[in-house]
Amino acid sequence: MTPKAKQEIERADVIIGYKTYVKLIRSIIKPDVEIISGSMGREVERARIAVKEALENKHVVVVSSGDSGVYGMAGVILEVAALENAHIPIEIVPGVTAATAAASKLGAPIVGDFAVISLSDLLTPWNIIEKRLEAAAEADFVIIFYNPQSPGRKEPLAKAHQILLKYRHLDTPVGIVRLAGRAGEETVITTLKEMIDAKIDMVTTIIVGNSTTHIVNKRMVTARGYDLSKQT
Amino acid sequence: MTPKAKQEIERADVIIGYKTYVKLIRSIIKPDVEIISGSMGREVERARIAVKEALENKHVVVVSSGDSGVYGMAGVILEVAALENAHIPIEIVPGVTAATAAASKLGAPIVGDFAVISLSDLLTPWNIIEKRLEAAAEADFVIIFYNPQSPGRKEPLAKAHQILLKYRHLDTPVGIVRLAGRAGEETVITTLKEMIDAKIDMVTTIIVGNSTTHIVNKRMVTARGYDLSKQT
Repeated sequence: MTPKAKQEIERADVIIGYKTYVKLIRSIIKPDVEIISGSMGREVERARIAVKEALENKHVVVVSSGDSGVYGMAGVILEVAALENAHIPIEIVPGVTAATAAASKLGAPIVGDFAVISLSDLLTPWNIIEKRLEAAAEADFVIIFYNPQSPGRKEPLAKAHQILLKYRHLDTPVGIVRLAGRAGEETVITTLKEMIDAKIDMVTTIIVGNSTTHIVNKRMVTARGYDLSKQT
Repeated sequence: MTPKAKQEIERADVIIGYKTYVKLIRSIIKPDVEIISGSMGREVERARIAVKEALENKHVVVVSSGDSGVYGMAGVILEVAALENAHIPIEIVPGVTAATAAASKLGAPIVGDFAVISLSDLLTPWNIIEKRLEAAAEADFVIIFYNPQSPGRKEPLAKAHQILLKYRHLDTPVGIVRLAGRAGEETVITTLKEMIDAKIDMVTTIIVGNSTTHIVNKRMVTARGYDLSKQT
């Protein structure tokens, strides 16, 4: 968390967020702050409440995990405020998103071009996700999966794996990070062949290497193109 | 900058980095710290010095701007340490990368799938960059350009623009952020048609919207797929 994000949470009159995320910051929330936590899937409702509270001149903080601008609440808040003609100042505070947090635990897998794809087909139709998977795999992007798998949704990851196998070697390095930067963090470096056997859930970020990604002292490193043999 | 990054800088015996980045953190460097700053293009040399200093049991901090794992020094340090058989602990500290910093200034352009592409052909051959541009443009990724243009390198951006025009409407929103999160920050929201006329240099990040990106109260928002008409 950046000092700016912490400062905003400390200044808040109202804090709104998915209950798991609110729990993560409970230790820095002041005792007299109003907390409105809710369940996954009720993002539009939370955005409406946030706008309503802000219109009452309260300092409202809506929290997402990682970065609110990356598959987070930033978009829906801006949309709802505009739909309701609410003239309120809205600031998006960036954070460390799962892609960069996970990358740092694995080594340096995204020092080259990369594509970020959510495997959740709840909000994006599968045919669009599939097209992006094919494109990113074929063009040799390092690929980062958000929301890879949940107990009730295992098919997208299995299909993504099949697509990757069409374009990449079985031994392509794959990094899997659960709870990146949080208590209970787990990091595994495996291969494209074996990745599907790893423990993967909604708090997991997967980074699939490209043709230049290799293992350096047990870490994943994507070649940046430097000539390391040069003496200066 | 995260508190973790700040802490490491404060604990450093030696700080190594491209001179512009060292200047940005000069206010938090302790007076007795050894500073080794160098020029762009001498990354391998800086990595070698960092490894050498660390082998002398010094606490060495190598700084990149934004996130050292995104087109930063993390990869070359790991590679050089391995090549030199240097058994030193190396930690990658994640930060707020230009993509998310710029996104937060523009609105919520990357709440959906996105691809990050560096337009510098110094380390990556142009044919690979071109293939990635085509793939990302066709598959409707929001696209983020790092290192878009320098005084001596204007052709890549012009070519990228031509590729984007094949797949996207002229009025696709494009956000241009110079010095994201730093003093002198400038933010412009324009269109694919007009983007080429903007002031674009090496400290500029460009975010090109996809088919669902629209302007909401003067900000760029990519649709996440929520049904905003629902009452709950």
